[in-house]
Amino acid sequence: MKGYGVIKVGRPGWLEKEKPVAGPLDAIIRPTVLAPCSSDTHSMHGGAGPKENLILGHEAVGEVVETGSMVRNFKPGDKVVVPCVTPDWTGRYIQEGKYNAHDNGLMGGFKFLLSKDGTFAEFFHVNMADANLVGLPENIAPEAALMTVDMMSTGFHVVELADVSYGETVVVIGIGPVGLMAVAGAQLKGAGRIIVVGTRPNCVKIAKEYGANDVVSYKDGDIVEQVKDLAGGKADKVIIAGGNAATLTQAILMVKPTGIVSNVNYYDAADTFTVPAPTWGLGMANIDIRGGFCPGGAVRIEKLINVIKHKRIDPTKLITHRFDGFEKIEDAFMLMDKKPPDLIKPAVFIKW
Amino acid sequence: MKGYGVIKVGRPGWLEKEKPVAGPLDAIIRPTVLAPCSSDTHSMHGGAGPKENLILGHEAVGEVVETGSMVRNFKPGDKVVVPCVTPDWTGRYIQEGKYNAHDNGLMGGFKFLLSKDGTFAEFFHVNMADANLVGLPENIAPEAALMTVDMMSTGFHVVELADVSYGETVVVIGIGPVGLMAVAGAQLKGAGRIIVVGTRPNCVKIAKEYGANDVVSYKDGDIVEQVKDLAGGKADKVIIAGGNAATLTQAILMVKPTGIVSNVNYYDAADTFTVPAPTWGLGMANIDIRGGFCPGGAVRIEKLINVIKHKRIDPTKLITHRFDGFEKIEDAFMLMDKKPPDLIKPAVFIKW
Amino acid sequence: MKGYGVIKVGRPGWLEKEKPVAGPLDAIIRPTVLAPCSSDTHSMHGGAGPKENLILGHEAVGEVVETGSMVRNFKPGDKVVVPCVTPDWTGRYIQEGKYNAHDNGLMGGFKFLLSKDGTFAEFFHVNMADANLVGLPENIAPEAALMTVDMMSTGFHVVELADVSYGETVVVIGIGPVGLMAVAGAQLKGAGRIIVVGTRPNCVKIAKEYGANDVVSYKDGDIVEQVKDLAGGKADKVIIAGGNAATLTQAILMVKPTGIVSNVNYYDAADTFTVPAPTWGLGMANIDIRGGFCPGGAVRIEKLINVIKHKRIDPTKLITHRFDGFEKIEDAFMLMDKKPPDLIKPAVFIKW
Amino acid sequence: MKGYGVIKVGRPGWLEKEKPVAGPLDAIIRPTVLAPCSSDTHSMHGGAGPKENLILGHEAVGEVVETGSMVRNFKPGDKVVVPCVTPDWTGRYIQEGKYNAHDNGLMGGFKFLLSKDGTFAEFFHVNMADANLVGLPENIAPEAALMTVDMMSTGFHVVELADVSYGETVVVIGIGPVGLMAVAGAQLKGAGRIIVVGTRPNCVKIAKEYGANDVVSYKDGDIVEQVKDLAGGKADKVIIAGGNAATLTQAILMVKPTGIVSNVNYYDAADTFTVPAPTWGLGMANIDIRGGFCPGGAVRIEKLINVIKHKRIDPTKLITHRFDGFEKIEDAFMLMDKKPPDLIKPAVFIKW
Repeated sequence: MKGYGVIKVGRPGWLEKEKPVAGPLDAIIRPTVLAPCSSDTHSMHGGAGPKENLILGHEAVGEVVETGSMVRNFKPGDKVVVPCVTPDWTGRYIQEGKYNAHDNGLMGGFKFLLSKDGTFAEFFHVNMADANLVGLPENIAPEAALMTVDMMSTGFHVVELADVSYGETVVVIGIGPVGLMAVAGAQLKGAGRIIVVGTRPNCVKIAKEYGANDVVSYKDGDIVEQVKDLAGGKADKVIIAGGNAATLTQAILMVKPTGIVSNVNYYDAADTFTVPAPTWGLGMANIDIRGGFCPGGAVRIEKLINVIKHKRIDPTKLITHRFDGFEKIEDAFMLMDKKPPDLIKPAVFIKW
Repeated sequence: MKGYGVIKVGRPGWLEKEKPVAGPLDAIIRPTVLAPCSSDTHSMHGGAGPKENLILGHEAVGEVVETGSMVRNFKPGDKVVVPCVTPDWTGRYIQEGKYNAHDNGLMGGFKFLLSKDGTFAEFFHVNMADANLVGLPENIAPEAALMTVDMMSTGFHVVELADVSYGETVVVIGIGPVGLMAVAGAQLKGAGRIIVVGTRPNCVKIAKEYGANDVVSYKDGDIVEQVKDLAGGKADKVIIAGGNAATLTQAILMVKPTGIVSNVNYYDAADTFTVPAPTWGLGMANIDIRGGFCPGGAVRIEKLINVIKHKRIDPTKLITHRFDGFEKIEDAFMLMDKKPPDLIKPAVFIKW
Repeated sequence: MKGYGVIKVGRPGWLEKEKPVAGPLDAIIRPTVLAPCSSDTHSMHGGAGPKENLILGHEAVGEVVETGSMVRNFKPGDKVVVPCVTPDWTGRYIQEGKYNAHDNGLMGGFKFLLSKDGTFAEFFHVNMADANLVGLPENIAPEAALMTVDMMSTGFHVVELADVSYGETVVVIGIGPVGLMAVAGAQLKGAGRIIVVGTRPNCVKIAKEYGANDVVSYKDGDIVEQVKDLAGGKADKVIIAGGNAATLTQAILMVKPTGIVSNVNYYDAADTFTVPAPTWGLGMANIDIRGGFCPGGAVRIEKLINVIKHKRIDPTKLITHRFDGFEKIEDAFMLMDKKPPDLIKPAVFIKW
Repeated sequence: MKGYGVIKVGRPGWLEKEKPVAGPLDAIIRPTVLAPCSSDTHSMHGGAGPKENLILGHEAVGEVVETGSMVRNFKPGDKVVVPCVTPDWTGRYIQEGKYNAHDNGLMGGFKFLLSKDGTFAEFFHVNMADANLVGLPENIAPEAALMTVDMMSTGFHVVELADVSYGETVVVIGIGPVGLMAVAGAQLKGAGRIIVVGTRPNCVKIAKEYGANDVVSYKDGDIVEQVKDLAGGKADKVIIAGGNAATLTQAILMVKPTGIVSNVNYYDAADTFTVPAPTWGLGMANIDIRGGFCPGGAVRIEKLINVIKHKRIDPTKLITHRFDGFEKIEDAFMLMDKKPPDLIKPAVFIKW
């Protein structure tokens, strides 16, 4: 079968591979809507370690083509939403009841890219199908559902980590698709003022539609001072959804004692955080620093779909570019790699 | 000075009393917007124990007329929002960090009605003014701010107790003003489906505007069965904002194992809860039953005002009847006591 | 194969049944140490609904005799500790991250007794062996490990639900084996004063060894008044590990506003809780009422074994009666049914 | 009056100052047992910013000599325990219900040293006496109570931040008096294995008595590798109670994904944390980094005294050196500054 991915570091392209095989608990899926993500391009460039001959892609809605002998809830032909995190639900860390992305270790639940081929293929494999797939509801657009599997799950996760409560002042640094979902997620936690840090006009526009009250730009000077001026002091919570290692220090400087800095930015392996002790109150500030990977599995994604179904949010605003046809994965991927200013999220629609 | 309240159980009326005196930490306030609450009429009828010669009222926005010698943040002439709960912040239970309504004991922070005269007066007293008063922001309508001090704080509290998370199915039983705020509060916690139990048309209309997806009526049969039919099973969380002792049993029957029943209904002293053991899974269901009194104090109310200020919600939809003039407190109170079907919340505007 | 259980309601006895069969993820175990539990005798009497031709027993340490084709961590001959709750880890409620006893519904993770034969047999079946079995560490006595699978997991669970923190006054009502583990568990959460309610002398003795400071007896009058006299007021937390429906009301009466009542008593299907509204502060007290079933699975039990291994507690004090030989299951069971005053917990040791 | 403190940076000595004055809510105390702390010597050396003409000391048990007009619970002659953190309980951050050390801002509740003279004086001042003082119980040794006000509150706080649960593997880095209390506190949270990092023989001895199972020394090589070898992998929680900026990186390296690093080490203003992004899982590890200042106030300290009273722990093991007489404050302070290997904590007993 055909798939699109990384041939070797820095060289994307089409690959020819064996069709994956379903174990007793697994399913094989054919994608019908796909989206490239900056983690895919990051992987192609070797940012998370060298990869070769790997099909990329981890966001997909599709159709079941085959199920293992022990799968009970799905059958070929079913339309399904596929979480980007598909945990082994028996994992040690999951048994402890938190953060299913780490089933048996760091990001162990993120199978695509990390331990097997991804979704940019004629067929792809999903482990523990009954626990990880969600039937696509009839009244939900597939591309809306597609936005839940990573963008919304990640953007909402960072809000959950920040433990946003009614009326709090929340800063969101970075308003790419994940940051925008964090803005929407913060509004859906009852935040008071939401201040975003970003510059691209269409992102700013959508940030405001999702609930941002104020916008701060790197281009207008030190973002820490701008936020403090606007907020009349420090924020209750600061969310990092973009930037580099220095952003962490800025975030800590923006948050009040007893506040939380919450991160979903995926740093580069070569980054180093450098935080002066006074920034963190010499260790005395009771400022929590948190950060993690998006949760997955069927129930998580079903709940996010519920949020859409009941009209709390429309995540399709993220989709700025639409492509038709399997072979257009390449164009969509190259667009994501180039990141033109008007791009938020591309989606590829496939008819088989 | 003049005040309106309970002369003796069951007999409301005007009272003549001494103007209250401010201790060093306290303030004396003259009300400019007031709202009667069903707790006031309940108290008049003796529902929370016999009261006599007591000025009623606990929801007010007003103007500072006098401050104690140790008050630093307020001065005569300041326009202020007055929480209905004004804790003694040094109380034992508060030091433990939860539920400021109980400063030194059950509802100890609810000073109006319980330990002193209320706000339906030419002047009323506020303890610990610096920690309990909030300056009225310029761009907030006083009647919007008025809705935070009890209705919104209570309605949001019951959502906080229910620990509503993204995409959950939430039932709100009772859609008077508190239940309506619970609906809005649940939407602002990212609830998925919100099912309300209620019948009055204007309440139903506003419930939908605040985010309710489905409405169940007592008039159409057993509410437990109706909710389960709609939700395709049991709900994640059930909120009680009205009803009687039997409502608690119904709520438990609607909630799934591991779910939460959360109550802000003020039961009558003569009520008894009667819950068959199987309803609560023979004690094995990990269904939490919670219920409490609204938090107060300056920071709580300031945060709720932030929610309004940043356009997350407009609580003035609750105000269905407006009265002008101090002497109209009586009409507003009698209306609240009669509860005509089109009433949600009356407000009295006073110019001095 | 032979097994001991309930022939029909009220009639215990030996049963002849087919040896269970392991599915691909499962294991078949031969018990080497067993303990009857009051839930077994309760089931025999029909307390949790009529049962017939069912092998009882849910506490066991044993040896693996067969494993399914997909089991990776265990092989025949391995000595294992078997949690009494062996969840289907892919269950909906588990994916939400709490209370694994309810995998797909109320007590769904409690497979023994509820959905299949128990452990009082020559062979018994364990689902999802890799996620539910724990290798018996070499330096742990099997009977110590046996005490973790229900007694310690349940007794510690009720303390976890009560969220005991440093220095709190904690009441434990009922000092059978579960209540005794709750006492030990409360001490291991840093409780201040621990007051127990119980009468049997050897239970009282062990309660004190596990950390109880004071003992209150039903025989000396109203336990609510006794506790309040001793504590100089109400307790921070009240744990129910025995009693009947009326105990819940007593527990609420003993706990302060903002406190927690936490239950692991298994009520009878015929019980009804009757709680006057003022007892629960008319719904305003912020007293949480919680109760649930013990968690299970490999990681939970491994952690409890760690508690023993590192000398925090010796749970074998619970074992007051020892029996040798498979056929002695009957004597042990009948002893548990009779509950003589000197019995806490019997154990049956089996050599094959 | 006489007091001992810092004349100018680096120069300790006796000072002559005015006796402090009690406001209406305050009290004046005469110390009867005192302990110097490394924060006092740190302040003398200018570690937390330059100070001059300041009386040091923040750990004291004493006798009330004067009370303000609004103080209700205490009177001259009362023996009291004085928390080192005495918050203004009306502070904004306290109203939010967490971390009372920060009443109105970073460490705002730590009045001694930071905003007024300390306890090494003939008389010292305590704000909000009713809410901040604790009567010394008759059956508690004053020097045991003295250990609660900072050592135990800080050592237990870091365990609370680490959210230690039953059976977890916990590492405590640094076993000075605070680290030792963290060991005791972790045992009192039901930790499984406790691994400490330290070298001084008497500290190691007491760490074992307080529950440590294993000891790792900096002298035997890389502590990260030693801990991982001992634990057979990473720890659930890592507590920092000593070290320097590099210790934070080591702590993160020792903790598993989804774990917590919890800090009470007071870093130097010149320190900088330098953490490579992969150490923190590129931001994806869901490892929380927490750290803060010890809580105070009457209820906190009362609860810690309850822990002692009910025989959960004996903190007087920390006191290795005893001095008699007010003038011996100097010797005790100089000993703390020199930190000989056999010192854990000195105490000064004063008769007036």
